[in-house]
Amino acid sequence: MTVTLGTTSASKTVDLGPAVELVSKEEGHRQPLAPEFVSAEDFSPLEVAYDFGRVRREDIEGGPNNIWRYKKLLPVPSNVEEIPNTEPGGTRLVRADRLAKALGLKRVWVKDDTGNPTHSFKDRVVAVALAAAREFGFEVLACPSTGNLANAVAAAAARAGWQSVVLIPKTLERAKILTTAVYDGALIAVDGNYDDVNRLATELAAEHASWAFVNVNVRPYYSEGSKTLAFEVAEQLGWRIPEQIVVPIASGSQLTKVDKGFRELGQLGLVEASPYKVFGAQATGCSPVSAAFRAGHDVVQPVKPDTIARSLAIGNPADGPYVLDVVNRTGGAIEDVSDEEVVEGIRLLARTEGIFTETAGGVTVATAKKLVETGKLDPDAETVLLITGDGLKTLDAVEGRIGPKATVPPSAEAVSKALGF
Amino acid sequence: MTVTLGTTSASKTVDLGPAVELVSKEEGHRQPLAPEFVSAEDFSPLEVAYDFGRVRREDIEGGPNNIWRYKKLLPVPSNVEEIPNTEPGGTRLVRADRLAKALGLKRVWVKDDTGNPTHSFKDRVVAVALAAAREFGFEVLACPSTGNLANAVAAAAARAGWQSVVLIPKTLERAKILTTAVYDGALIAVDGNYDDVNRLATELAAEHASWAFVNVNVRPYYSEGSKTLAFEVAEQLGWRIPEQIVVPIASGSQLTKVDKGFRELGQLGLVEASPYKVFGAQATGCSPVSAAFRAGHDVVQPVKPDTIARSLAIGNPADGPYVLDVVNRTGGAIEDVSDEEVVEGIRLLARTEGIFTETAGGVTVATAKKLVETGKLDPDAETVLLITGDGLKTLDAVEGRIGPKATVPPSAEAVSKALGF
Repeated sequence: MTVTLGTTSASKTVDLGPAVELVSKEEGHRQPLAPEFVSAEDFSPLEVAYDFGRVRREDIEGGPNNIWRYKKLLPVPSNVEEIPNTEPGGTRLVRADRLAKALGLKRVWVKDDTGNPTHSFKDRVVAVALAAAREFGFEVLACPSTGNLANAVAAAAARAGWQSVVLIPKTLERAKILTTAVYDGALIAVDGNYDDVNRLATELAAEHASWAFVNVNVRPYYSEGSKTLAFEVAEQLGWRIPEQIVVPIASGSQLTKVDKGFRELGQLGLVEASPYKVFGAQATGCSPVSAAFRAGHDVVQPVKPDTIARSLAIGNPADGPYVLDVVNRTGGAIEDVSDEEVVEGIRLLARTEGIFTETAGGVTVATAKKLVETGKLDPDAETVLLITGDGLKTLDAVEGRIGPKATVPPSAEAVSKALGF
Repeated sequence: MTVTLGTTSASKTVDLGPAVELVSKEEGHRQPLAPEFVSAEDFSPLEVAYDFGRVRREDIEGGPNNIWRYKKLLPVPSNVEEIPNTEPGGTRLVRADRLAKALGLKRVWVKDDTGNPTHSFKDRVVAVALAAAREFGFEVLACPSTGNLANAVAAAAARAGWQSVVLIPKTLERAKILTTAVYDGALIAVDGNYDDVNRLATELAAEHASWAFVNVNVRPYYSEGSKTLAFEVAEQLGWRIPEQIVVPIASGSQLTKVDKGFRELGQLGLVEASPYKVFGAQATGCSPVSAAFRAGHDVVQPVKPDTIARSLAIGNPADGPYVLDVVNRTGGAIEDVSDEEVVEGIRLLARTEGIFTETAGGVTVATAKKLVETGKLDPDAETVLLITGDGLKTLDAVEGRIGPKATVPPSAEAVSKALGF
């Protein structure tokens, strides 16, 4: 939809494709498209509402091999693929027979999102946020982050020729600092913990009208990017929704958007609206949603995170209640796993399928294992696991546990002997 | 072609698709397909010869979004996509306008091969080697390596359910050991330097009939995998060969295979056989091919490598003379750049296009810059740069040179001040 925006000095025409309004999640209050994230009516999160019109498979199949093939289902301009941005998506859906066997499942697919430009699914959400932010007249792309999001924001801004402002706790690991700083945006180390950095981001978003904090003031657009995981999975399966999908939970946004993506595909007739179950995965050291599910609550009690799965370590997940809704509605479940199990999950995926994931992926694999063992995942139903980030970014998790099988002198005899020949 | 192989105890039928023979590079001696890499007639490297028959664009476009869409142009079985292997390729070709402007070129495309399963082009060659090795009856996938190849071999073997044997110098960096060991193959640390490890590999290949050393005894098949870079670039440009392409040189194999790929596409009528120039890129600390080109020699004098671009540090490049042939035939050139320029190349690509490459990619970008400055690259001609590996694997190269712009207390005022507002 093309709307005229009057919030800046000169009014500006905004093209956000099929997006028509924002709607509050709790009471469904509607308001015009704008860079806002909380309803002034009921204080619940705002979500994008659409008028899709007719969308055919051919429209999508004829598009580029990245998330912009789904532009008719996203809050982005109709010419989005012509504007400098990253081109995330189009990542592999791998048939994982060896992992399936190890887990005791009949058929498993791994969605390997490590192939994205900065090697995590965050490239999807940031690309959509950048496209929408440009329409709203923003000029700076910003975020508070401790890792994947920092990489994605700094890279996307560099590609678009935008300034970026990335706020990190100053104690962040060397590797994460380097992999963000290399894009040459304004990387600011804050003398405080992640909570301090987050508060600071909200304050700065209010003060700087030209700064788009991807996960704050343009969050409704940003979060829609996660739908592309559902779209790709369905298209890669031959326009079909899998019976079971296991999704890691941080804020919970990704899980709710995967569900939204599947529903939209069904409503548009792009796939048969077949039943599916959504399962959530957390690390026990930060498992407020899993705990609420287990207790049968519909609200989530915040926790103080303590887990190696730092990219999932959000103690007060904004979309927690909506995650519980989706999981309960679809007949899924939520489980959590220990850090020891997370590492075993990373190693299991690597040795069975040659995919090296970060700790979040280890959480997903280990949770799938637990869900099979507890009878919650149907072993005969087709199952998709979302692997959303890369092991190269969390080497610490496996350090000290793996290494060479042997160290030998440079002789063929020594090698053969070390290998037991 | 389907041939019967009699070298193992029971004869076995080998399906390597369109591949029909091996041919020696120097004198064109022909011999049956076999796991051999040097001609017994003229001691030159063996290369795969094909009978392609008719190949249409539709055959390719209807295939999977990975290198197996080009199976009719590779020495792999006709059902290769059904056999467990990695699915490399289908990586982005990025229109790089900001980089082009910085380099003084009119139109630049970056082939971003960091999106592969283990984040380098080595996944392409290893996948083809594995497919061919399986046909020849091998059971173990092996290599000597100091990095990218080790990752790719260990991951591909894990995915296929094969044993892997990866030989590394014991002094290898922690990150490279972890990113190989995680796949749980037989990683063997050798008390010696890379030359020792390489010699050991040749010795072991002779002793163990069931071990396929990807870059030794099955090298003719392995190296064909690099053609897929040329195929993808041409298809992604809309079935067109770019006027100029810049390729990094290690052994030189990749550069010669990119040229072979373009020629095959022209011969088959898949693209117009338009003229193109191939340019080679080396680090000055290991630049034997560049030195030979500058001196007008047709042989290459070995050197002792000393450069941060370790994935290119082959002092005695096997395909050096053939690289000189290709570059001279197409009217290209070869240049080399200092380690300082390599780092600046990495940073230039990151800040203009949001792509973080390893040192080899820095060599390519910096060499392109030098080739423009010396008038060897035509600024008005369309240019493709091959970015073949990932910056996450060579963090040391940028360490100490980049970091946060500022460290501030957790206040909005402090951030604004640090940014000059």
